[in-house]
Amino acid sequence: MTKLRRTPEPVRIPRGFSFSAVTAGIKVSGRPDLALIESSASGSAAALFTRNLVVAAPLEVGRASLVSSAGRVRAVVVNSGNANCATGPAGRQACERVCRHAARLLGVPAGEVFPSSTGIIGVPFPAEKVVAQLPGLIAARAATKSAALAFAHAIMTTDTRPKIAAQRFRAGSREVTIFGVAKGAGMIHPQLATMLVYLLTDAAATPRQLQQILRDTCDPTLNSMSIDGDTSTNDTVLLLANGQSGVRVSEARVRNKFSQALSAVCQSLAEQIVSDGEGVQHVIRLFVEQASTREEALLVARTIAHSALVKTAWAGADPNWGRILAAVGRCGLPIDPSRVRIFIGNQMVCRDGVAHPFNERRAHQSLAQPECDIRVQLRRGQTKVRFLTTDLTAEYVRINAEYST
Amino acid sequence: MTKLRRTPEPVRIPRGFSFSAVTAGIKVSGRPDLALIESSASGSAAALFTRNLVVAAPLEVGRASLVSSAGRVRAVVVNSGNANCATGPAGRQACERVCRHAARLLGVPAGEVFPSSTGIIGVPFPAEKVVAQLPGLIAARAATKSAALAFAHAIMTTDTRPKIAAQRFRAGSREVTIFGVAKGAGMIHPQLATMLVYLLTDAAATPRQLQQILRDTCDPTLNSMSIDGDTSTNDTVLLLANGQSGVRVSEARVRNKFSQALSAVCQSLAEQIVSDGEGVQHVIRLFVEQASTREEALLVARTIAHSALVKTAWAGADPNWGRILAAVGRCGLPIDPSRVRIFIGNQMVCRDGVAHPFNERRAHQSLAQPECDIRVQLRRGQTKVRFLTTDLTAEYVRINAEYST
Repeated sequence: MTKLRRTPEPVRIPRGFSFSAVTAGIKVSGRPDLALIESSASGSAAALFTRNLVVAAPLEVGRASLVSSAGRVRAVVVNSGNANCATGPAGRQACERVCRHAARLLGVPAGEVFPSSTGIIGVPFPAEKVVAQLPGLIAARAATKSAALAFAHAIMTTDTRPKIAAQRFRAGSREVTIFGVAKGAGMIHPQLATMLVYLLTDAAATPRQLQQILRDTCDPTLNSMSIDGDTSTNDTVLLLANGQSGVRVSEARVRNKFSQALSAVCQSLAEQIVSDGEGVQHVIRLFVEQASTREEALLVARTIAHSALVKTAWAGADPNWGRILAAVGRCGLPIDPSRVRIFIGNQMVCRDGVAHPFNERRAHQSLAQPECDIRVQLRRGQTKVRFLTTDLTAEYVRINAEYST
Repeated sequence: MTKLRRTPEPVRIPRGFSFSAVTAGIKVSGRPDLALIESSASGSAAALFTRNLVVAAPLEVGRASLVSSAGRVRAVVVNSGNANCATGPAGRQACERVCRHAARLLGVPAGEVFPSSTGIIGVPFPAEKVVAQLPGLIAARAATKSAALAFAHAIMTTDTRPKIAAQRFRAGSREVTIFGVAKGAGMIHPQLATMLVYLLTDAAATPRQLQQILRDTCDPTLNSMSIDGDTSTNDTVLLLANGQSGVRVSEARVRNKFSQALSAVCQSLAEQIVSDGEGVQHVIRLFVEQASTREEALLVARTIAHSALVKTAWAGADPNWGRILAAVGRCGLPIDPSRVRIFIGNQMVCRDGVAHPFNERRAHQSLAQPECDIRVQLRRGQTKVRFLTTDLTAEYVRINAEYST
């Protein structure tokens, strides 16, 4: 199936970061499945985790480590092929063992090794395989573009391509780089899709500053997208700042630039994740406008974006605004349908809750593009959100219904 | 595609009810699309309507009529092929015109003609076509099984077969009959799926008694099922009691029997609707047990039943309990995943949030049946719900993505 293609993003590595990837034999395919990021200096870190109450072992361990290390991270160890989720206390112990072992080899505190896993859920974690490959993984680390790309490849599961983004800006005579690498949402038996995002920068910041910036940046980007509405048990976003540029984020003239650059990296990764979603043929940029609050706008966007009927209409490039209006009507908010307006591409198709004459052929053509804007105006207030989502195709069903013992 | 087959239900018509169906030319197919139920005596009625805020014109008119007639209904006029939804004031006027016209022809008050529509949303309602066929529709009415079956066929949209159910019980020397007829959930461009259910009985009851019984009966039956999670703008359940059996529901020994018989009719219609859902290959009887409240159990059931990942696993007969556990974890309740147990067929597959050894082949075979039980135990209390749902197949996507101008 044809995937939406995007212009490749440049690889720009911030000072002091090295990468590597090896094959530990967790993935049945024999592809690289164990990967490392190391910072030459201990860095400040902030992280966001899944809101699912079913939480994988590495998230529990990583969250505890961030507390015990007071937000310091020196290295990230990621495996694909096993999510280490629903594995009980044995799963946590296996994860801690990997972190301890990597920390010893790197000569850093165990609490400064941050773990991630993605892959099969409910299967015991093969700690032996990982531990056996750690010396090779660490020895192979390099501050090169090819090493960074190898990392991006090794964390993939059903992704069809690696996802990276970078931004660079000047602060006086110095230069700050932000590099992001992600894996996206895909699920194939019995793997559980996961969004893993690593944001690396050579700016200097405290963990508290990073946490605030990370939350503000992710809400309108990585948290404003949906492929199938299912929240993974392993979702993690980590922001790691090692200070090697000598530029402090706390400086007033830097903070804005830094936030903008980080937003651009996150937005690019969000678009890459959505456009590489399983079976995705059409990316929809959904704008919910004239809401009274951001929460309200997001609830409307999510109800539309999770409607099987709306998403299948998009798969057929069908300008069926009635399904969108019906989704708005059942979102749980006291919205007056007779005020709602809906636009597909640049055409109004529904005005004040009833049909508005439009060129159906042109609306169909807008939706047949790889990306299309849909605008829903509630006329209740001034707030607007942008939400990235996708169609629901027979290919998605095929991928996720495939049963292999 | 093979549809699940059920044993046909008998047609048993309560005293005093007649049916008819004609072709008004609303459906492009030329199939019958206008149908009538008439009671020889004015009957007590109770109704439940969609909770969607986008509400079709006939629901607004029908709701108002039930108020103005103090819960009396003499006839039901249903059309398929046009939902008369998102049609604004013109749609309401068209609906009222049809009711007035039918009432005049039947010699009854306009407020005692109850309207329903199902089909295309957002398209002006062709009142002319309907009004032109009303005399023929009314003249053709008959208290026969074939007339009742003709009614059941005429209200179909993407249903592949009519849906009827009946129960009869004795009260002393007298006999009470309950007959139910329904159309199910299906959606094809640009029609909006709708559940329409008509429950007819010759028992005698006040509108207030009927409303209470109807709500109690529908909650665990017609309100405990989901095919795709989208709530139609036209959903209507009407219970009509014309008293012709001479048996009063208010008698203590009758009320229980009546409730049980009505429940059996509703449960049978619910199963028929779900098994005839678009693209459905597997019906899942989902039991959520050991919840602290019914609301909690229903929220868990709905989150599982609406998960695209869970439903596609079912399509592949894949015993992927991790997706079910992950759905429980994101349902919004403070459920402790380490207490959750999951059963597929008669096997435990997840015990206290982690894998429990099971025969994967046997679990696959259970799921490969047309119907399968799945049991989720929360271990928070004593409450249990039964929720009927389905898989999500590539065929569902194909039906709903089909675009025709």
